[in-house]
Amino acid sequence: MRATIMYGAGDVRIENIPDARVIEPTDAVMVVSRACICGSDLWPYNQREPSDTGRRLGHEAIGLVEAVGNEVRTIKRGDLVVMPFAYSDGTCTFCGHGLHTSCVHGGFFGIEGGEGAQAEAVRIPQADGTLFKLPVDKDDTLMPSLLTLADVMGTGHHAAIVAKVGPRMKVAVVGDGAVGLCGVIAARRLGAEQIIILGRHPDRIALAKQFGASDVVSERGEAAIERVRKLTDGFGVHSVLECVGLDEAMRTAIGIARPGGAVGRVGVPQGETMPASLPAFYNNVTVGGGPAPVRAYIDELLPDIMEGKIQPGKVFDRTVGLDDVPDGYRAMDKREAIKVMVEP
Amino acid sequence: MRATIMYGAGDVRIENIPDARVIEPTDAVMVVSRACICGSDLWPYNQREPSDTGRRLGHEAIGLVEAVGNEVRTIKRGDLVVMPFAYSDGTCTFCGHGLHTSCVHGGFFGIEGGEGAQAEAVRIPQADGTLFKLPVDKDDTLMPSLLTLADVMGTGHHAAIVAKVGPRMKVAVVGDGAVGLCGVIAARRLGAEQIIILGRHPDRIALAKQFGASDVVSERGEAAIERVRKLTDGFGVHSVLECVGLDEAMRTAIGIARPGGAVGRVGVPQGETMPASLPAFYNNVTVGGGPAPVRAYIDELLPDIMEGKIQPGKVFDRTVGLDDVPDGYRAMDKREAIKVMVEP
Repeated sequence: MRATIMYGAGDVRIENIPDARVIEPTDAVMVVSRACICGSDLWPYNQREPSDTGRRLGHEAIGLVEAVGNEVRTIKRGDLVVMPFAYSDGTCTFCGHGLHTSCVHGGFFGIEGGEGAQAEAVRIPQADGTLFKLPVDKDDTLMPSLLTLADVMGTGHHAAIVAKVGPRMKVAVVGDGAVGLCGVIAARRLGAEQIIILGRHPDRIALAKQFGASDVVSERGEAAIERVRKLTDGFGVHSVLECVGLDEAMRTAIGIARPGGAVGRVGVPQGETMPASLPAFYNNVTVGGGPAPVRAYIDELLPDIMEGKIQPGKVFDRTVGLDDVPDGYRAMDKREAIKVMVEP
Repeated sequence: MRATIMYGAGDVRIENIPDARVIEPTDAVMVVSRACICGSDLWPYNQREPSDTGRRLGHEAIGLVEAVGNEVRTIKRGDLVVMPFAYSDGTCTFCGHGLHTSCVHGGFFGIEGGEGAQAEAVRIPQADGTLFKLPVDKDDTLMPSLLTLADVMGTGHHAAIVAKVGPRMKVAVVGDGAVGLCGVIAARRLGAEQIIILGRHPDRIALAKQFGASDVVSERGEAAIERVRKLTDGFGVHSVLECVGLDEAMRTAIGIARPGGAVGRVGVPQGETMPASLPAFYNNVTVGGGPAPVRAYIDELLPDIMEGKIQPGKVFDRTVGLDDVPDGYRAMDKREAIKVMVEP
């Protein structure tokens, strides 16, 4: 089968590799209907050291189950399923608490040495716990939005939950990438009164407004902090969704949170330490978040997608076939595309 | 009147200064019945640059109201009151949300340029919002425990609240100072099933056990993390009360939190950045906390003290008069005393 392999920064190739197959009795094999490229894929795309051993990529997909192992009970051949970016058994203590990204038998797709979904097919460990069977047909027009349940919509929702977004609250979203945009959807959905998006790309800002952003702040650093405070009676927002991961973004996030506020961070931190620890302390600002347990959120988010109440699939503004995945990476890296969908 | 003035590291003097008096119409003057020395006073005691302009010290006290300004309504001359370490108007949006340490008209006692309670008397700004009238007599034997409502008991409780301690939970307390010991009381009071104290001073550990600690970990760093995990099925604790403020303590706190756990930090951070940002992220560990809004917690904690259910006053193991305050600092700094009470 064909799959996406990255050999180093900027070096993404489509190659023939052995077909995906059931290895563990709890595995399934899924033929990929739609996958996508994630903002987090751009970190290795920009930084990975050149290597002879490639790394498979892709951690978000919808597909058809082609085969299941002997111990798979609830998932069947022919099911149309969402594959969240983390696999999980669905039964351990952490899954039981809705934190599937810390499953004791879990792991991540698209990481060094692992399976990847930017391919014709993918092996799914812990199929029963991992996969979510969709109540639609493969060619349903809802497909792009359903695909976001694999990561970005669930991740934006996680940021909002950790940031304690609720009715009548003032919210800021740091970052206008696909996750930030889904964060706007999540904040609106949870009843926020004011939603400030911090970003500067006109196409993304337009989409943010469509999703419910009430204010736009294009400044950065101290100027951004000052501007957000002006928009919020001088105090800052109750909830900040940090959807970037860079130190500057975290510094801004803490700077715009009002005393007693909360920052939900879902951008993978690029630094070992967290900046602005002291301002966070003196203002009793809580910082939480991490890899989103998107599997836990599908039950809650799916109905809103089915009813058309939210349309996170709009973050996809380009679609490529498998052969054009390298070009999709380039387009996202150059900010020519917000998020690229892959139809293998 | 006589008051404690610090001129630099190790240089604490008792001096005659002008009497405390009402300046603003919202002020009161309180004659100090009992004050104390705080672990946080040891930071300037060890680090303050020598200076000709001294700094008043002391931010925890019980006393009798001697005078009130024209606009003070609820507090009266003769009232026996607790003075929390922060003053607050009690009416602003943050006080309304129980975050009195972020009061828009608030501030702190015992800081550079401010009032201090290790003295015969102290001026209390925002008297109506700040002071809490006690339902006891001055010589009540409950006085030491009531004095802890000014800081350490409320601060330990804050750490526990932010760390989301609840029934049947596994809790760790990092630090065996007075705040950590009160954190043990708070965790027990909130229903924790297992309370692990991280510390190594025999007298403090004995008190921690008396307060409800079930396990003691005297190791530090990686060894401490390993030991706590062994005590908690390998996963770590749900809640960590970080009562030190040093980077190593925060690194340990994050290291012993289980995925999805929470760290409540009340030790004033000595570093600009927070270590272990990445492990916190990957485990979805939330870090919150800051200066405790102890004024907000008195209503909840006072009844338990009055009924003898909790006895945080046991953290005081030495009492000095005002003239011996410098010796009290020395004793706490040398770890000869857990916490020193001052009877001016």
